Amino acid sequence: PAAPRPRLCDSLGADQTPSASTLNAARAEARPAGRRAPAVAAVLPAGGSGERMGVPTPKQFCPVLERPLISYTLQALERVCWIKDIVVAVTGENMEAMKGIIQKYQHQRISLVEAGVTRHRSIFNGLKALAEDQPDSKLSKPEVVIIHDAVRPFVEEDVLLKVVTAAKEYGAAGAIRPLVSTVISPSADGCLDHSLERARHRASEMPQAFLFDVIYEAYQQCSDYDLEFGTECLQLALKYGHIKAKLVEGSPDLWKVTYKRDLYAAESIIKERISQHICLVMDTKDENHVGHRLEEVLKDELNHVKVMSRLPCHTGRDLDQIMSEQCYSYVCVNVMTSDFEEIRKLVNMLEESNLSILYPVVVISVYFLDYKSVPFDQKMENLIQIREYAKEVKKRNILLCGLLIYYPQDEQKLQESLRQGATIIATLIKERNSGLVGQLLVA
Amino acid sequence: PAAPRPRLCDSLGADQTPSASTLNAARAEARPAGRRAPAVAAVLPAGGSGERMGVPTPKQFCPVLERPLISYTLQALERVCWIKDIVVAVTGENMEAMKGIIQKYQHQRISLVEAGVTRHRSIFNGLKALAEDQPDSKLSKPEVVIIHDAVRPFVEEDVLLKVVTAAKEYGAAGAIRPLVSTVISPSADGCLDHSLERARHRASEMPQAFLFDVIYEAYQQCSDYDLEFGTECLQLALKYGHIKAKLVEGSPDLWKVTYKRDLYAAESIIKERISQHICLVMDTKDENHVGHRLEEVLKDELNHVKVMSRLPCHTGRDLDQIMSEQCYSYVCVNVMTSDFEEIRKLVNMLEESNLSILYPVVVISVYFLDYKSVPFDQKMENLIQIREYAKEVKKRNILLCGLLIYYPQDEQKLQESLRQGATIIATLIKERNSGLVGQLLVA
Repeated sequence: PAAPRPRLCDSLGADQTPSASTLNAARAEARPAGRRAPAVAAVLPAGGSGERMGVPTPKQFCPVLERPLISYTLQALERVCWIKDIVVAVTGENMEAMKGIIQKYQHQRISLVEAGVTRHRSIFNGLKALAEDQPDSKLSKPEVVIIHDAVRPFVEEDVLLKVVTAAKEYGAAGAIRPLVSTVISPSADGCLDHSLERARHRASEMPQAFLFDVIYEAYQQCSDYDLEFGTECLQLALKYGHIKAKLVEGSPDLWKVTYKRDLYAAESIIKERISQHICLVMDTKDENHVGHRLEEVLKDELNHVKVMSRLPCHTGRDLDQIMSEQCYSYVCVNVMTSDFEEIRKLVNMLEESNLSILYPVVVISVYFLDYKSVPFDQKMENLIQIREYAKEVKKRNILLCGLLIYYPQDEQKLQESLRQGATIIATLIKERNSGLVGQLLVA
Repeated sequence: PAAPRPRLCDSLGADQTPSASTLNAARAEARPAGRRAPAVAAVLPAGGSGERMGVPTPKQFCPVLERPLISYTLQALERVCWIKDIVVAVTGENMEAMKGIIQKYQHQRISLVEAGVTRHRSIFNGLKALAEDQPDSKLSKPEVVIIHDAVRPFVEEDVLLKVVTAAKEYGAAGAIRPLVSTVISPSADGCLDHSLERARHRASEMPQAFLFDVIYEAYQQCSDYDLEFGTECLQLALKYGHIKAKLVEGSPDLWKVTYKRDLYAAESIIKERISQHICLVMDTKDENHVGHRLEEVLKDELNHVKVMSRLPCHTGRDLDQIMSEQCYSYVCVNVMTSDFEEIRKLVNMLEESNLSILYPVVVISVYFLDYKSVPFDQKMENLIQIREYAKEVKKRNILLCGLLIYYPQDEQKLQESLRQGATIIATLIKERNSGLVGQLLVA
């Protein structure tokens, strides 16, 4: 695919475009103005075996909406423009799979290194690759390094900025969250020794950030015992660099995908996020047409969703714009025809936009079963062809369905048809399930 | 509804029926034989406000598949026959809603008490209601009391038995889990003071169990500070009763529904559990019929699912048995007719079984578009009526869809039709979404 991907420097549902200047501006608030932005890289240990998940695939490679979890995490990091390099540590046996993921989802600024047998050893390998003493490396030593987990896909630019800014000032920083459960210390015989006061402790989460020299020297000095059994980079900075890390309050979305239930949660969160915008393409300007009433009912049914209407007569750049804003749900209201010409145009544009590389795109083609229009049989014969066409576009991760809305003369019955139509549209967009592509649903 | 509910003493997907004798048998392994089973009650604090969830409804009342979360937790406790009483502490403003939930979902052995302003005060109120010094109480003082959370719906009999058995021996016991994140202690200025070694600490989860006298006396002696700011019952037993609680390893499913993502996870887990069994009702004995080939393909598509076949000619007690084993998914293969007679019979039986009180039941009515059978138009006219009938049965939480499988003479095409049919069936059963009821899908 030669066409460019939707702009990388973007965050789902966020309005601002992150950039080095954002970093400068935000830092200007906390620090004296006029300082340059630090060079930032990220290290992502991804060598885990996922034994807690109870599934054979390591959790970072488990599919979420058919895409491996780690690809979402890479996407979250690479859309932050001021992160120059992303170093991922994977085991030898997963190296080829990882290269395949980077290619398929067109990830950028990624370098791969071999993972160690523990998390600390993997991070250390990532840091070594960034240090300038590697002769054949294309990477350069950053001023600040972010350490993140491959299994925390929902990291926002906001918290990355906070830990990087704090690391610049304090030498080390990490995200924390309140404890959900009380933490206790067991005695050797499996009984309660003591419990910790919940309010005085926090869960240490990711991301963390460090002045590169601080954390690299800590890793160079630390013992084999630390590398084998340690779990906390902030602790290494404290023990070997005498740096007290700044703690930054993180959002609940930073949680670590650990169990199968976390994969379910991640999938639901992603589905919800990509269903926040719906683009309605209407093939008539007639304001009194029933298509516009469908729009009203849809806004009612999906009250948290932004519904944007477009006429295909001035689509072109207009739809391009919507696609570049990462709208993953399209409802085409066909009033004038019962063929797929408009749908074909839309699908072609979607393909050119490369939007469906990252997420399945839902397209619903709506027809009205109108007492005034072409005879039922003839219309049905046209529409039944949607099955073959849907099968074809499914290969490109575009999920196409047809929806036939009954259009009775009775006002109350019409309102009921429209409401049921909106419910079906909402269901198809929210579930985003490929099992129902090509169906012609009836409201 | 006068008909009995599906047997309460059952666990989803588990084979054994819990009973007092199970408790005796299991305890006999750990303790000297011949001792009687203790009288056990449970206290469930449910007064929380759910502020962490970021939604206005307290999390225990949030709907999961349209049923409040707390109802799943009550169901998990009440199916354990040897728990004699379940005392739930709810705030005054939620008292009526809670009574409505108990009635609607036919919960049994439940008593309600007023919640306190903190978790400890709510538990104390529950214990007071169980203590014999309440003159107007129908409850009697148990030997052992379980304390559980309203927002941990997946508690299994197994772990309840373990904590009760350990509480009998040690005076107190609680479920624990390994820590997912490292726990740290912040200093007053928001920096890292020290981090705790992850391997030496555990998360204290629920359920917990206590000899009633131990925990009741601890609550009577403890300070206002404990009642306001404490979070750990095991700690009270230690501090005031000098009892070192036995710690019992729990399963990951014991986790506490805290954030919105946890509700998503809970819904997916429940959907997965109730989709493990499919009952296929076939209206022909002809072993060579295409319906039997659909069965093979279904078993292939849903390889973790138990597919049971039944002939309606000897349904009656047979289907009753399947319904009492809590099968929530039915696929009716109609070969001989294109009407709804078989479906109506099945739906009537489902209604009598009360199965759909607790979970939505999916019914898929399958027809073959056969070159030998009745003319297409006539068949369609019959089938289109499914929409009205589906609307009617949806009120009773039964989700009915039609599926038309194209039956070509070409062997390869037939196999493809069957495979697509199986995919659609699997999708409808897994998603269990009410937005698509009454649709006539085509494979």
